Amino acid sequence: MADLGTLVLLRHGQSTWNAENLFTGWVDVPLSEQGAAEAKRGGELLAEAGLLPDLVHTSLLRRAISTANLALDAADRHWIPVRRDWRLNERHYGALQGKNKKQTLEEFGEEQFMLWRRSYDTPPPEIDPGDQYSQAGDARYADIDAPLTECLKDVVDRLIPYWQSTIVPDLRTGKTVLIAAHGNSLRALVKHLDGISDADIAGLNIPTGIPLRYDLTEDLKPVTPGGTYLDPEAAKEAAAAVANQGR
Amino acid sequence: MADLGTLVLLRHGQSTWNAENLFTGWVDVPLSEQGAAEAKRGGELLAEAGLLPDLVHTSLLRRAISTANLALDAADRHWIPVRRDWRLNERHYGALQGKNKKQTLEEFGEEQFMLWRRSYDTPPPEIDPGDQYSQAGDARYADIDAPLTECLKDVVDRLIPYWQSTIVPDLRTGKTVLIAAHGNSLRALVKHLDGISDADIAGLNIPTGIPLRYDLTEDLKPVTPGGTYLDPEAAKEAAAAVANQGR
Repeated sequence: MADLGTLVLLRHGQSTWNAENLFTGWVDVPLSEQGAAEAKRGGELLAEAGLLPDLVHTSLLRRAISTANLALDAADRHWIPVRRDWRLNERHYGALQGKNKKQTLEEFGEEQFMLWRRSYDTPPPEIDPGDQYSQAGDARYADIDAPLTECLKDVVDRLIPYWQSTIVPDLRTGKTVLIAAHGNSLRALVKHLDGISDADIAGLNIPTGIPLRYDLTEDLKPVTPGGTYLDPEAAKEAAAAVANQGR
Repeated sequence: MADLGTLVLLRHGQSTWNAENLFTGWVDVPLSEQGAAEAKRGGELLAEAGLLPDLVHTSLLRRAISTANLALDAADRHWIPVRRDWRLNERHYGALQGKNKKQTLEEFGEEQFMLWRRSYDTPPPEIDPGDQYSQAGDARYADIDAPLTECLKDVVDRLIPYWQSTIVPDLRTGKTVLIAAHGNSLRALVKHLDGISDADIAGLNIPTGIPLRYDLTEDLKPVTPGGTYLDPEAAKEAAAAVANQGR
C-alpha cells in the first residue's frame, strides 16, 4: 500500500479589508503588512517543522497568492510547481461584498447577520453585475459561470470536484501538498475531510497564517481528526479572535 | 492560419549579488530593493502597454520568481498559470560562482575574463561539489543531472528543448506568454529566435526589468528582428551599463 502524501492548509494572513472589517469574498484586496508578516511566519513554521511542500495550490485571489509566495520564499520552496484555480476562492459574499460587518450587523440584526455568515445553505442576496464590487467582466473568470453569491454548501459543491480531480492525485504520488486559500474554502475542505455535519461546521474557525497539517489514510480520512496546527497555542487564540469578528 | 500568441521576455531586476558585483549563476540570491522596484516597473510597463500575459514561465531561481510575482502583481495578472523549469535558469558559472567580477578580472586578466564571460563555447572551470556555492544536494535539482559549469552554448542546448516542448505549444494557442528569466537564458533564446551567430551573440546585452516583446510568424521567426522593448530609451541605457560590468 503506497504511502499517501501530506496535506497542509494555510489560510491567508490579514488583508486590508479584514483590517477594515469589510466583507470581502471575491473582491481582490491585498494583504495588509500584518498579513504579509503572518504569511512569512507561516513559511518559517513549515521550515522549522521540516514540512516542505512539493507543490502548492492557490485560489485566483491576490491575498492567497501572496501568502503562498511569501510563505514558500521563507521556507526556501519558492521554486515548487504552482497550480491556481477559482474553485479555491473564498466564498462569494454576494451583495454584502464591500459592506462593513459591524454596520451590516446593526442594519440587519443578529439573526440575519449570523444566517448569512454561518448558515450552511442560505446565501446572501446576489450581487448586482453593475456593483463596483461585482466580478462581471473580470478576465480571470471569463471561462466560467462565476457565482453572484454563495453559501458554504455552494463552496463545498464547487471545491470538492477540484479536490478529487487535481489535489488527490498529487497526494497519491506521495507529495506534500500545500493549499493556500481562504477561511471558507478551507472550512469547506475540512468539513469534507473530517465529515463534519452541516450544523457543526458553523462552529469551526480556521486561524490565519498557521499551517494545518493533515496526514491521511489510504481512503483519505484524517489520521488525526481536525489535523494538527504547527503552532497549536497561536491557532487556539486566533480562532477565538475570528469568531468575534463583526462585534 | 491561426494567429500566434505574443512572447514577452523579462530579465530579473538587480539582485543583491549584482549589486556586489559577484558572479551568481545558480546561486539563489534574492532581488535587491532596486531589483524589486525594477520588477514592479516592468509590470507597470506591461499594464500601460495593455500587454497582459496569459501565463508565465520562470526559472527555479528566486530572483526570476520574485520578478515574475512582483511584475504580475503590478499588472493585475498575479492569478495566471505558472510554469517553472530549471532549463530557464541562469548560466551555471562553475567555479566562478560567488567570486567578485573585478577581482576575477584582475587575477586572470582581460582575455581570460572575457572568454569566460562572453565566449560561446568555453565554460569556466567546474565547481567543486563541496564548494559552498555548489548546488549539490539542492532538492530542486534532485531529478536532473545538474551542470557543474556552463558556457552559453550549453544554455542554448538545454533551453531550446523546453522552448519547443512547452513554450511554443502555448504560443500556438494564441496566448501571451511571459518568460521571467536571466541574462544568459534570455540571450540563448534571443540567439535562437533571431538567428544570431555564435560570434555576434557576444555583443548582445539584455537590460533588466524592461519587457521585450516578440511577435512571431507562423514559422516562429520574429516579425521585428530583435523584438521591441516596452521602454526603448531605458533599454538602451541599461544595456550599455551591463556591458561595462566588471570594470
